Amino acid sequence: MRIDGRKKNELRPMAVTRNYIKHAQGSVLIEVGDTKVICTAMIEEKVPPFLKGHKQGWVTAEYEMLPGSTNTRKSRDRNRGKIDGRTMEIQRLIGRSLRSVIDLSKLGERTLWIDCDVIQADGGTRTAAITGSFVALHDALSNMVNKGMVKEMPITNFVAATSVGIHQGEPLVDLCYEEDSNAEVDMNMVMTEKGEIIEIQGTGEERPFSKQELEKMLALGEESIKKIIDFQKETLLG
Amino acid sequence: MRIDGRKKNELRPMAVTRNYIKHAQGSVLIEVGDTKVICTAMIEEKVPPFLKGHKQGWVTAEYEMLPGSTNTRKSRDRNRGKIDGRTMEIQRLIGRSLRSVIDLSKLGERTLWIDCDVIQADGGTRTAAITGSFVALHDALSNMVNKGMVKEMPITNFVAATSVGIHQGEPLVDLCYEEDSNAEVDMNMVMTEKGEIIEIQGTGEERPFSKQELEKMLALGEESIKKIIDFQKETLLG
Amino acid sequence: MRIDGRKKNELRPMAVTRNYIKHAQGSVLIEVGDTKVICTAMIEEKVPPFLKGHKQGWVTAEYEMLPGSTNTRKSRDRNRGKIDGRTMEIQRLIGRSLRSVIDLSKLGERTLWIDCDVIQADGGTRTAAITGSFVALHDALSNMVNKGMVKEMPITNFVAATSVGIHQGEPLVDLCYEEDSNAEVDMNMVMTEKGEIIEIQGTGEERPFSKQELEKMLALGEESIKKIIDFQKETLLG
Amino acid sequence: MRIDGRKKNELRPMAVTRNYIKHAQGSVLIEVGDTKVICTAMIEEKVPPFLKGHKQGWVTAEYEMLPGSTNTRKSRDRNRGKIDGRTMEIQRLIGRSLRSVIDLSKLGERTLWIDCDVIQADGGTRTAAITGSFVALHDALSNMVNKGMVKEMPITNFVAATSVGIHQGEPLVDLCYEEDSNAEVDMNMVMTEKGEIIEIQGTGEERPFSKQELEKMLALGEESIKKIIDFQKETLLG
Amino acid sequence: MRIDGRKKNELRPMAVTRNYIKHAQGSVLIEVGDTKVICTAMIEEKVPPFLKGHKQGWVTAEYEMLPGSTNTRKSRDRNRGKIDGRTMEIQRLIGRSLRSVIDLSKLGERTLWIDCDVIQADGGTRTAAITGSFVALHDALSNMVNKGMVKEMPITNFVAATSVGIHQGEPLVDLCYEEDSNAEVDMNMVMTEKGEIIEIQGTGEERPFSKQELEKMLALGEESIKKIIDFQKETLLG
Amino acid sequence: MRIDGRKKNELRPMAVTRNYIKHAQGSVLIEVGDTKVICTAMIEEKVPPFLKGHKQGWVTAEYEMLPGSTNTRKSRDRNRGKIDGRTMEIQRLIGRSLRSVIDLSKLGERTLWIDCDVIQADGGTRTAAITGSFVALHDALSNMVNKGMVKEMPITNFVAATSVGIHQGEPLVDLCYEEDSNAEVDMNMVMTEKGEIIEIQGTGEERPFSKQELEKMLALGEESIKKIIDFQKETLLG
Repeated sequence: MRIDGRKKNELRPMAVTRNYIKHAQGSVLIEVGDTKVICTAMIEEKVPPFLKGHKQGWVTAEYEMLPGSTNTRKSRDRNRGKIDGRTMEIQRLIGRSLRSVIDLSKLGERTLWIDCDVIQADGGTRTAAITGSFVALHDALSNMVNKGMVKEMPITNFVAATSVGIHQGEPLVDLCYEEDSNAEVDMNMVMTEKGEIIEIQGTGEERPFSKQELEKMLALGEESIKKIIDFQKETLLG
Repeated sequence: MRIDGRKKNELRPMAVTRNYIKHAQGSVLIEVGDTKVICTAMIEEKVPPFLKGHKQGWVTAEYEMLPGSTNTRKSRDRNRGKIDGRTMEIQRLIGRSLRSVIDLSKLGERTLWIDCDVIQADGGTRTAAITGSFVALHDALSNMVNKGMVKEMPITNFVAATSVGIHQGEPLVDLCYEEDSNAEVDMNMVMTEKGEIIEIQGTGEERPFSKQELEKMLALGEESIKKIIDFQKETLLG
Repeated sequence: MRIDGRKKNELRPMAVTRNYIKHAQGSVLIEVGDTKVICTAMIEEKVPPFLKGHKQGWVTAEYEMLPGSTNTRKSRDRNRGKIDGRTMEIQRLIGRSLRSVIDLSKLGERTLWIDCDVIQADGGTRTAAITGSFVALHDALSNMVNKGMVKEMPITNFVAATSVGIHQGEPLVDLCYEEDSNAEVDMNMVMTEKGEIIEIQGTGEERPFSKQELEKMLALGEESIKKIIDFQKETLLG
Repeated sequence: MRIDGRKKNELRPMAVTRNYIKHAQGSVLIEVGDTKVICTAMIEEKVPPFLKGHKQGWVTAEYEMLPGSTNTRKSRDRNRGKIDGRTMEIQRLIGRSLRSVIDLSKLGERTLWIDCDVIQADGGTRTAAITGSFVALHDALSNMVNKGMVKEMPITNFVAATSVGIHQGEPLVDLCYEEDSNAEVDMNMVMTEKGEIIEIQGTGEERPFSKQELEKMLALGEESIKKIIDFQKETLLG
Repeated sequence: MRIDGRKKNELRPMAVTRNYIKHAQGSVLIEVGDTKVICTAMIEEKVPPFLKGHKQGWVTAEYEMLPGSTNTRKSRDRNRGKIDGRTMEIQRLIGRSLRSVIDLSKLGERTLWIDCDVIQADGGTRTAAITGSFVALHDALSNMVNKGMVKEMPITNFVAATSVGIHQGEPLVDLCYEEDSNAEVDMNMVMTEKGEIIEIQGTGEERPFSKQELEKMLALGEESIKKIIDFQKETLLG
Repeated sequence: MRIDGRKKNELRPMAVTRNYIKHAQGSVLIEVGDTKVICTAMIEEKVPPFLKGHKQGWVTAEYEMLPGSTNTRKSRDRNRGKIDGRTMEIQRLIGRSLRSVIDLSKLGERTLWIDCDVIQADGGTRTAAITGSFVALHDALSNMVNKGMVKEMPITNFVAATSVGIHQGEPLVDLCYEEDSNAEVDMNMVMTEKGEIIEIQGTGEERPFSKQELEKMLALGEESIKKIIDFQKETLLG
């Protein structure tokens, strides 16, 4: 039995509110247990300098935690004049994950800005951000198709993410903050609906881990991400 | 008739959701029409250097707009390595307004951090932030009284804020974004429940304005802030 | 009787030295009591990006205090890598005040940079900066007219500023530093020669203030700004 | 046959020059093919604030590429006033990897600073940095043991790293820059001498990858890291 | 004949106004031709970290040009978030020059901050700053002696500076901006009253220069600095 | 006898390894005693904004010390968000020195970036950097001539640098760190093969110095730089 009564392979309750912010072309509030993230997708009619003239678009992501989102107030990056290493790592992961399922050549010379702002954190903010911003991105792209800005949906796959870890020797999925803080091993997985891997990042926080443990975590992650993608589909298409 | 069907002295619908974020000692989501701001109040057990040893506390505020909160994506201050002038002005106003109704000597040597994060902007974000963060601060202080951290409520007055302006020659209250962009004169008022002024900032955006116009705006603001403070009381003491 | 022997409605001695810096198109040293500010107006033959192609000019202001201008040395903003909130507020106020009396469409696609550097501070630096930089701006624009760069003077009004406050229950005008530090209420007023308001910013530093007090301060400010504008006219035209 | 004539599971030639810099307590030049990294380990007699009084030490790493290390000159991070996201990610990985094999409680209240400066880059700089800085760290700790600063070696495991990837459908180890740029899948592995995983980071750069592909890469990485650790042992103990 | 009618070895008119700023312990306005610099000396009752507990004081200098001081507006360092290389070089030179004539052990554990703010520039701002700030420093130290803060004057020598250069093959002293811009060789000299060298910095701007040319410039500088120190003495003691 | 057994006019052993970094058009490792600096010269096919359209090229230099290069770890400039004053001074000196022997009009509209990264410091890093980067620059330019990018060698002179100083009353050349730290007078000289001066910077660190002492140092520097330029020629042409 886990700290919050879940089974080892049980995900926390997930909720996605679409069209959460009126100005963005796509926006959701995603809730995974007590973790809450606002994800918006906004269009900018230009590409970064390194893509100028390449006849393709770009998708980029930014991630930030509100000061009140954590137990001890998190001071704003802007005050220190530099971005937190962890923040940087996370927003790069979100950007890569989303780009891997978009055919950028179908976007036109424009950038889709994904913003993931954590308003309440209880573990798994980066994976919630990936899962939620895929929905926001899907909505933004649908809007663009409807308006004739792009000819067809540039999405090649569904994508979602979750965390897996080893806590007191047992593989667990979707760790809440307290589990995460005490986990021996921590792994984030990003997968497609077909069970293929887009990104895998595993760290032996307290100790190295064996290939057998890795395999167990992979299986747990794959099974869970399938459920999450089912949930995304229901939300979007249902 | 105004753009959204309101009368000249009519406030937009206001809603305050208390205990919106679980980690903060006080937190609200305040909605004023389509303007939505998360306000949190968090305790830090130390004071800024200039107050060390003065046997009093401090209240300070930060304000930020999420990138997706505005029509055109607002790029994050942290990326430019400096804080926007308007942001600076607003957070200083929020801090001064709240400090003016707190007896800092009753706080103990601790800081109350007020964070106002705008998740959707439609005019009047700074005044919504003041009105909402007063409620968050009140909740945080009540919690501190309940836990015996402070002996008695250090609040000396209720405080709330609204905007007034002159649009096509007519004084209006609580301007939405479209009204605000076209107003000839723009004024923010912060007042106590007794109708006394804490802060007044009026700007002739398009043209100078007369003392008669100032008086009309003052009357409109006073009448409106009384309604807002009634709403705060209902929310808090209800 | 005030600390420096003035009557309540008495301004400090004011002096304006024109053409103070040889490189600037307009420049003054303004002295208001012991407050001394160098104001320069310089032309740049381009506009900020947001105005490109709008067939109009721009006026922008920067404000800074020299390290030696205050009692305790003020460390330079550049060393902290960010601009002081108060500085930001003041330079935005100066810019808005001057723009409000300039017909920007007559300037051509160029920027007038106003720099206000305080070399000695004794209260009222921001209002002295507005009063002085109007003269510098007037001189720069006259030069531009003389050189045929602009067809006619783009100035629509004279503008000047002063501070008013409530000190020991009494409304005072043009507060020196010591009065300002102890004032219960502090207000800055920017007005035209016709007695119309361009900007008003009042703060209850020690306590909220009533509308009656506001009215008294307004009257005091209006009477004083008229005198200051007379002085500007004498300086410029006399 | 690979681009440089290697077999799929063949590592590039590796060389480690110990005591490369005279001032550092431990220092190496590690060469992996044409990739060259200077790794130094230096002692500072204090710990970061979050560890004060915890009676343990800390190991932290910084990584940077010299401007001349890459084909197109890499401009210095200091000039942009912020650290590159990729750099941040890499130095966090190096720090975590080394900390995972050190018993920090045996270090005393001091910090070991690991600096990895890439003087020539040809793929695999982060894994070379981990492999090399383990040797530098080992030397620094040996020196500390010899001087009686620590009682016994605080190292619990050997650690080394390599990259694996999928290039034209084939799993390859230790990718040079040209292979890396064209790889469909890219994975960095950090392992102990016992074949346990410390960190694994796999990215589907061009396409998602299957679990079968992951397994092949894992096997290739494990076999290679064993060889690298043998080489480290020879270098250090041999 | 020089551009402004001077002889080759003729200094520009020099004026020093003492007690120019009321808050500083020492302050002057120095005018050298059209170059005008405000120099202030202010006391801070602590030393920088590297001197804590060394029972000595410190003298440090900062230099800045007001935006309006030059022909083309000089944008503020604070806006670029970093200090200009030239500025850095100059303020380090001023600091070294003054420290070389102060017995820091007689200062007590305090810092003397020298601020040199150029309000109008016409060549030779750094040497004017050295000459002027020596006077400001002398005044500040006299005040400290008078107040009993230090027992005896910690000044060991008078110090002043001037520029020399080679312009159209001829050695000139105290170059104005136009001469300086066209000089083949540019040299700044800082010397004591005894004709000893504190600092010498010569640059072949347009071409290398010979030892014979160096000797001529040295003689010219020595003769001129003697005159300047006479002027300082008259100002201070006269 | 000097601390390391050298005679007063004896240079430390010097070694230059050409083509040290494969990516740069020119690159050397220069060793002067225990001082080791990597100097690279890289071509960028554009000029800085202030030279656009001037039909000439540019040479600019950057200098940095690796954290492990000094006895006490030197923290990276990028972490403080600003460049060290000493670093700024040095890189400006390197740039000026190299530009003085290049005919920029023969370069075409391109920039040659010189990067000097100190991997081990034992005094004289700036002069080693100048001496070494001249060789790297020469190699880069030869390559450009060979490829037909420039028609003829744009080098007008050889240039090299060394330090001289006065230590315990005696003039010494090429000071190592320990000598440098204790020197009364410290001077850096940059000269051409013809014995002409490009740059001279002398500082009385502990006391002012006489013209006689300056002359002795000049002679010592001239004699030594001749030897260094002979060594450069042998390296390059030999």
